[in-house]
Amino acid sequence: MSMRYALLLEYDGRGFVGWQRQAQGLSIQEVLETAAAQLAGGMPIAAAIAGRTDAGVHAAGQVAMIELPKDLPPERVQEALNFHMKPHAVAVVEARAAPADWHPRFDALRRRYRYVILNRRARPALGFGHVWHVPHGLEAGAMAEAARHLVGRHDFTSFRAASCQAKSPLRTLDRLEVRRDGVFIIIEAEARSFLHHQVRNMVGTLKLVGDGAWEPLRMASALAARNRAAAGPTAPPDGLTFMGVDYEPALFHRTDERG
Amino acid sequence: MSMRYALLLEYDGRGFVGWQRQAQGLSIQEVLETAAAQLAGGMPIAAAIAGRTDAGVHAAGQVAMIELPKDLPPERVQEALNFHMKPHAVAVVEARAAPADWHPRFDALRRRYRYVILNRRARPALGFGHVWHVPHGLEAGAMAEAARHLVGRHDFTSFRAASCQAKSPLRTLDRLEVRRDGVFIIIEAEARSFLHHQVRNMVGTLKLVGDGAWEPLRMASALAARNRAAAGPTAPPDGLTFMGVDYEPALFHRTDERG
Repeated sequence: MSMRYALLLEYDGRGFVGWQRQAQGLSIQEVLETAAAQLAGGMPIAAAIAGRTDAGVHAAGQVAMIELPKDLPPERVQEALNFHMKPHAVAVVEARAAPADWHPRFDALRRRYRYVILNRRARPALGFGHVWHVPHGLEAGAMAEAARHLVGRHDFTSFRAASCQAKSPLRTLDRLEVRRDGVFIIIEAEARSFLHHQVRNMVGTLKLVGDGAWEPLRMASALAARNRAAAGPTAPPDGLTFMGVDYEPALFHRTDERG
Repeated sequence: MSMRYALLLEYDGRGFVGWQRQAQGLSIQEVLETAAAQLAGGMPIAAAIAGRTDAGVHAAGQVAMIELPKDLPPERVQEALNFHMKPHAVAVVEARAAPADWHPRFDALRRRYRYVILNRRARPALGFGHVWHVPHGLEAGAMAEAARHLVGRHDFTSFRAASCQAKSPLRTLDRLEVRRDGVFIIIEAEARSFLHHQVRNMVGTLKLVGDGAWEPLRMASALAARNRAAAGPTAPPDGLTFMGVDYEPALFHRTDERG
């Protein structure tokens, strides 16, 4: 009897080509699937995921699903996967048995991302690879104001990567908040789902507002234009972390209580 | 006319043999002094420091001093050092002109350290190299209680490395606090000065209390024994960060507002 498992994954996106397997380079998918195959005695195992992440993007609460040919205690699955994934910077933080019809992507009710900008003159030594370093002062208040224009149900074509495969550019952005915390600017984004590069494109545009190059209201015109060229550049992957996914009923503890 | 500069340093201790130059391997001292010599047109420059750190120990607020043969604006010194120290994980977060008799070590009124334990079953993927991973549950309340027995002026021989070069084992520990923050246990230590390995030896012993292997009160007997063998093992360097140094008048902004 095969058994489906939900896995709460943490990974450091540096050194990976992203979640998905590529012709060249190591993907998180390959690390997880290779470990799962070892646990399944060599049988190939395909993992599904709540949301793909690009090269350099991190996860504190990614959710994956694997199906194993035997019914093992979830703790055993977690331990064995963590053992086989060593020394890669990928860890199963929690494992749960899941219903046979559960799917991490289709059943996701909400996805949560955090983006961190290090806003000080000196380049990062401790946070290197985990922040976007912007050396000149950003106006976080103006960024927060601009962010409010994007919340709600909209056509997000202006913030969508050319490579985006979603059928519709309509998305409901439930939360986009900007706050300053010392030398950091923290941006929290929540939606049922996001378009490809949507968070990074929103952050890259918010930075133009923080610079003073854009008035906050210009964010509304950029959105209304439904044209990628009307918005700002894509922020680098380093500052982005996939914080978690909500399901009903809840599957895992929240991992973003401490940032 | 030569000019003395105070430097607020951030570094990631991984990949370094520690602050001090060694026969083998790269030290933070070498990175900083090499950059300072480049800024001084090739003239050798010796850096002094508030407190040495061992291999693998990080700093968010280490304080160093260099003397340059010419009077440059502190911002210039910061920019030039950060440029020359690339790509090493060392950054000058702030630079200040300092009085000719100021010394980062002798003038330090208080040093602040933070130690972070990741207390969950899964090994760290995001925090790797920056936490001590303890997979079984620790009792933070008992650790906090035990910590209180160490606060005050005491002979800390039991928590002192054999290699410690201090003349006296007497130190005044102003603060030793333990708190749980989700899966993390955070230990904050403050004193005018510490013995070599004192923080890591205190943490390694607190962990025995967290394990339940020791009653909190045994910490008082370990201290009273004045014998290194009476205390617990040395905690690994990974979880330790030198957070800052206090001077009077204050030199720099505090860096530990966000941990």
